[in-house]
Amino acid sequence: MATLKDVAKETGLTVSTVSRVLNNRGYISEETRKKVYEAMKKLNYRPNEVARSLSKQTTNTIGVIVPHIRHPYFAELISNLESQAYHYDHKILLFNSQEKNEKEWEYMEMCTSNRVAGVILCSGTVGVEKFTGLNVPLITIERYLENGTAEVECDNEQGGRLAAQHLIDCGCKHLIHISGVHETAMPADARAVGFRAVCEKQKVSYQIADTTAFEYNHLEYHQILEKLLKENPDTDGIFASSDLIAAQLLQVCHKLSIDVPSQMKIVGFDDVNIASLTTPPITTIHQPIKEMAKMAVELLVRSGNGELVPNRTTLPVSLVVRETT
Amino acid sequence: MATLKDVAKETGLTVSTVSRVLNNRGYISEETRKKVYEAMKKLNYRPNEVARSLSKQTTNTIGVIVPHIRHPYFAELISNLESQAYHYDHKILLFNSQEKNEKEWEYMEMCTSNRVAGVILCSGTVGVEKFTGLNVPLITIERYLENGTAEVECDNEQGGRLAAQHLIDCGCKHLIHISGVHETAMPADARAVGFRAVCEKQKVSYQIADTTAFEYNHLEYHQILEKLLKENPDTDGIFASSDLIAAQLLQVCHKLSIDVPSQMKIVGFDDVNIASLTTPPITTIHQPIKEMAKMAVELLVRSGNGELVPNRTTLPVSLVVRETT
Repeated sequence: MATLKDVAKETGLTVSTVSRVLNNRGYISEETRKKVYEAMKKLNYRPNEVARSLSKQTTNTIGVIVPHIRHPYFAELISNLESQAYHYDHKILLFNSQEKNEKEWEYMEMCTSNRVAGVILCSGTVGVEKFTGLNVPLITIERYLENGTAEVECDNEQGGRLAAQHLIDCGCKHLIHISGVHETAMPADARAVGFRAVCEKQKVSYQIADTTAFEYNHLEYHQILEKLLKENPDTDGIFASSDLIAAQLLQVCHKLSIDVPSQMKIVGFDDVNIASLTTPPITTIHQPIKEMAKMAVELLVRSGNGELVPNRTTLPVSLVVRETT
Repeated sequence: MATLKDVAKETGLTVSTVSRVLNNRGYISEETRKKVYEAMKKLNYRPNEVARSLSKQTTNTIGVIVPHIRHPYFAELISNLESQAYHYDHKILLFNSQEKNEKEWEYMEMCTSNRVAGVILCSGTVGVEKFTGLNVPLITIERYLENGTAEVECDNEQGGRLAAQHLIDCGCKHLIHISGVHETAMPADARAVGFRAVCEKQKVSYQIADTTAFEYNHLEYHQILEKLLKENPDTDGIFASSDLIAAQLLQVCHKLSIDVPSQMKIVGFDDVNIASLTTPPITTIHQPIKEMAKMAVELLVRSGNGELVPNRTTLPVSLVVRETT
């Protein structure tokens, strides 16, 4: 591969002049600039970003750690993070933690060894004490860590309220909320808080059904959903904590000959592609994933520039009515 | 951040001894090794991978360029590439080209500037002439480039044959294959070849319907599918070139009151999560995505080691019967 020296030799200029052209430093005549670019093109020279990074002691790479890549919510989130990073001339190093503590931790170390500009963590089993001394901006999405990090989340409690109110407005009398993994504290737990508040205020019968890490890790809920429906035959409205769960619930209702929406109304959460791809398409709570990704990248860049950034940023959600209610 | 010098100072050893411990070079006593590791831990020292990469002139990072991250097929593929890369102690730099020529090209340049160990390209509008002189292993998945690259693909023609034969075995008389983007030559086009061959041999009426780049870029096929069904009321069997299209076709059939599978049978392609999440779940052609990802990463590593690798590797597909046939 051609080096800076080769370009200098080709042009008859010194290495330091060529370097000044590349880094746009000091006065350079138009003629010299043109000569350097022509030589670069001829020799197929590409600046060595690794060497540049070494002198800057950082790269323009963002480490992104997610628990699942194939989960439609994270696929959508990664897609948006990539395009926002591109906007800031940053790249994405992608890691799949499978929500495993040791993998998360290993990835955090790989990120710092590779001198990333910062880490966006969307997977949260690692305790906050692990993050001291990492010396890179750490932004979490939908994972709150108590100390020294900035978190971006959607208004989960509002989502729970909107879902409960909508099901009640549709005439449902016996509600269930299928919530997230019960061992892990996540901002998503606030969905149950909002849901419960509305049900209690309006005196509608409800229950909160927890799922386990097993279902979450395997993205597979059919069994637990079938059991839930059989044990609660009165249920006429369900708020699922993801569109993925809602789609599987639609299949279970079909299997048990429960018609949606006439006998059972369903509200999902996330508003990712799967919500519009089922038959009937799913009424859901829209998470502003694009805006959350944008905010996370912005906070990372600003934090890297030494700016003080908010440690918690909450974006509003909204109800999208489709055909399951 | 602590440096190698700080570790040397803390232990009272020379920088070169500490470096030998880190790189596992030459004889080091157990006592010295222990002393170094304790100092590293105490000082929170992390080896600088950027500096290591500079001396090696390459990194253990693989550039992955896909046209869509949110498309369920690519989400599944990326997820598998990440876990295979992890197995080889490599990381994934992820780029979303949106199938745009100039973005692909820019990303290829970013990859080489960042001295990646290789590139896995799953997005293919860039002509082969662009790739000369890149000097890194370039593996394509489902995109064939004529010169100097290694390609991994599934047996698309076999997939087309399996789909046509299955629809005919189910009693269908008027078949349609909804194929990929008609402007772009892709290995997926071979699906139509296999489909056509079976239909002609068995004298079953068929047509091949092309989609356009507009639908592919927006992942939105409803309009074109509705038009197709209205113009071809006799159709009783459709082979869609992705599960995403098949899912949207299910919705259009529902809208037009065409019952699946009694009036219309549908076979998809890919076998990604969406195929099992619709009601009814979709009969489809299973692409061995996991094995294709494994093969791509292996070929990249072997090519980087100077081994001669096959320029075309085809993996078999299989029919997965669910409830749309």
